[in-house]
Amino acid sequence: MLEDHVRTGAYRDAIEGNRAAFEGKVVLDVGAGSGILAIFAARAGAAKVYAVEATPMAALARKLVEANGLSDTIEVIQGTIETVALPEKVDIIVSEWMGYLLLRESMLDSVLVARDKFLKPGGALYPSHARLLLAPARSALGASRSAEFQASMQGWARFAGEAASLYNVDVTALSEAYRAEQRLYFMQTAAWADVHPDDMLGAAVAVKEYDLLTLTSEELAAPLNASMRLPLAADGPVDAVVGFFDVEFNGSPENPAPAPVVLSTAPDAAGATHWGQQVFPLVPPVRAAAGDSLVGSIALRRRADNHRLMEVELKTGVDGPSPHAAAGGDGARVDAFQVE
Amino acid sequence: MLEDHVRTGAYRDAIEGNRAAFEGKVVLDVGAGSGILAIFAARAGAAKVYAVEATPMAALARKLVEANGLSDTIEVIQGTIETVALPEKVDIIVSEWMGYLLLRESMLDSVLVARDKFLKPGGALYPSHARLLLAPARSALGASRSAEFQASMQGWARFAGEAASLYNVDVTALSEAYRAEQRLYFMQTAAWADVHPDDMLGAAVAVKEYDLLTLTSEELAAPLNASMRLPLAADGPVDAVVGFFDVEFNGSPENPAPAPVVLSTAPDAAGATHWGQQVFPLVPPVRAAAGDSLVGSIALRRRADNHRLMEVELKTGVDGPSPHAAAGGDGARVDAFQVE
Repeated sequence: MLEDHVRTGAYRDAIEGNRAAFEGKVVLDVGAGSGILAIFAARAGAAKVYAVEATPMAALARKLVEANGLSDTIEVIQGTIETVALPEKVDIIVSEWMGYLLLRESMLDSVLVARDKFLKPGGALYPSHARLLLAPARSALGASRSAEFQASMQGWARFAGEAASLYNVDVTALSEAYRAEQRLYFMQTAAWADVHPDDMLGAAVAVKEYDLLTLTSEELAAPLNASMRLPLAADGPVDAVVGFFDVEFNGSPENPAPAPVVLSTAPDAAGATHWGQQVFPLVPPVRAAAGDSLVGSIALRRRADNHRLMEVELKTGVDGPSPHAAAGGDGARVDAFQVE
Repeated sequence: MLEDHVRTGAYRDAIEGNRAAFEGKVVLDVGAGSGILAIFAARAGAAKVYAVEATPMAALARKLVEANGLSDTIEVIQGTIETVALPEKVDIIVSEWMGYLLLRESMLDSVLVARDKFLKPGGALYPSHARLLLAPARSALGASRSAEFQASMQGWARFAGEAASLYNVDVTALSEAYRAEQRLYFMQTAAWADVHPDDMLGAAVAVKEYDLLTLTSEELAAPLNASMRLPLAADGPVDAVVGFFDVEFNGSPENPAPAPVVLSTAPDAAGATHWGQQVFPLVPPVRAAAGDSLVGSIALRRRADNHRLMEVELKTGVDGPSPHAAAGGDGARVDAFQVE
């Protein structure tokens, strides 16, 4: 995680910048990776840091801790949080668990397990809060994906002709299955992008907020259904809904961070974090004008075949003073996507 | 598999072009995919064809068989060859099991299981024989991979500087691990390529031949160790060893194919099969001249962590009349590769 300076800098500020919250405390780093957060915690004055990492990366974390002279404070443990034992409860859990669109990869599951297993009453999580954000945007993605989809279907038509002429095999019985597969791949898969702020058609709106101290594993595993109202500050057409997140490092009510930090993954002219944003192309675009709002809902659930990936369904219509809204906008349309 | 006309055409010729071998026979298609080989077998006069496919693709194969009016002859069965039951033994097994460098993906395992479970004595396999081939070649791959590796290590040096200045963390303890990982990725991983025949520095030599009727699963699972002598028809330097394969459709001694077919994946000016060739870059290149031979050995084994992937070790020296050989060539060097 070190190459992304927005990310690493935010964690460094949240931990080393809140020495009063960490001084003399016992800290757990969940999914420690290289151990960098454990190092920040030790430098912030923690009495003891347990750095739990499931992969062989643990050996490298141990090396890094040694090379930085912190072996007395930091204990690197290779194992999953679900199976490891710690000799004591902890005051603070630090973790960098966020995936694309906040929840992809499902690593938050392990943080909640760690919290329920190891965090003392009144203890704090770093980060402590998270928000899922959506915004309307301009994007060329839908148009280019449409072109690729059309080219792919033309390729299929050519192939079907060849199968008939070369092998005397009629493959047209598979055309619908092929079309569905290609549509899923090109038209119904969200894309990573480093969106420029100039392409935002309105401010981002939080559709879901998580307090990590009280969120339960059951709530997290359940499908998310949230209503959505995205005001347009500029005229459409709206080519895409863009999704991203931010997290806050506030500490806990009993041990608040004196200097709270926010890590945002919003579009930034200076360049994205490695998370970028997820773009959901609307094809055809939604016609709307400044002053209107994109209204509807977002449904987000884990994929049944791979709970680290997600399915998103957007229901969108237009509400507002423009003729597009007056005419019913584009009506209540439904767009479904994979987040891979 | 239908888009690759060299491949599909070879199977069509091998099956439909050998009607006398298929007429009235019971046939098994192992890993049937779309069912195209089963269709060829039915058209070649087979009395009954069992098309076994493990994935949901079986449903599409069934559709394709129906649409082509062959449901009376072809029975599509979804299941693994290791677990399915057939109501009878079969006369012929057809299968398209070959992976990169012949053996990647390990699908031949299933064909041998099918043979031992279902093939009548005297029955035939299509294909019946396979050869692993190597050739010396010119290639820009080693030079470009070296440049990428150097750029990556420069990136690491820059990052290490930032980690020290921005976070006061000394990451140089991880430099060796990073270098090893990058070396494996850039310098020790074989690459798919569509090699042009003009870049071949000598004829291909078979280092291993398989008779699929007699090959045992144990022989197939064991590491392959073969000596190698690749004569150079042109002057070096030799930038790479190129690996590929061919398979023969000869039928069996008791039921020979009247018109044997060879499917070759050799470099072809008209364009490769989808298999292309695997390029093993030699960095630095081996200095040698026309008339010399690249001599040594190839060791090939399945990866312990994923038996569908492979590890290849090439030992190379130069033998022949040129000063390079007289001077001991480049000595007996060892290059290790992943085939991914």
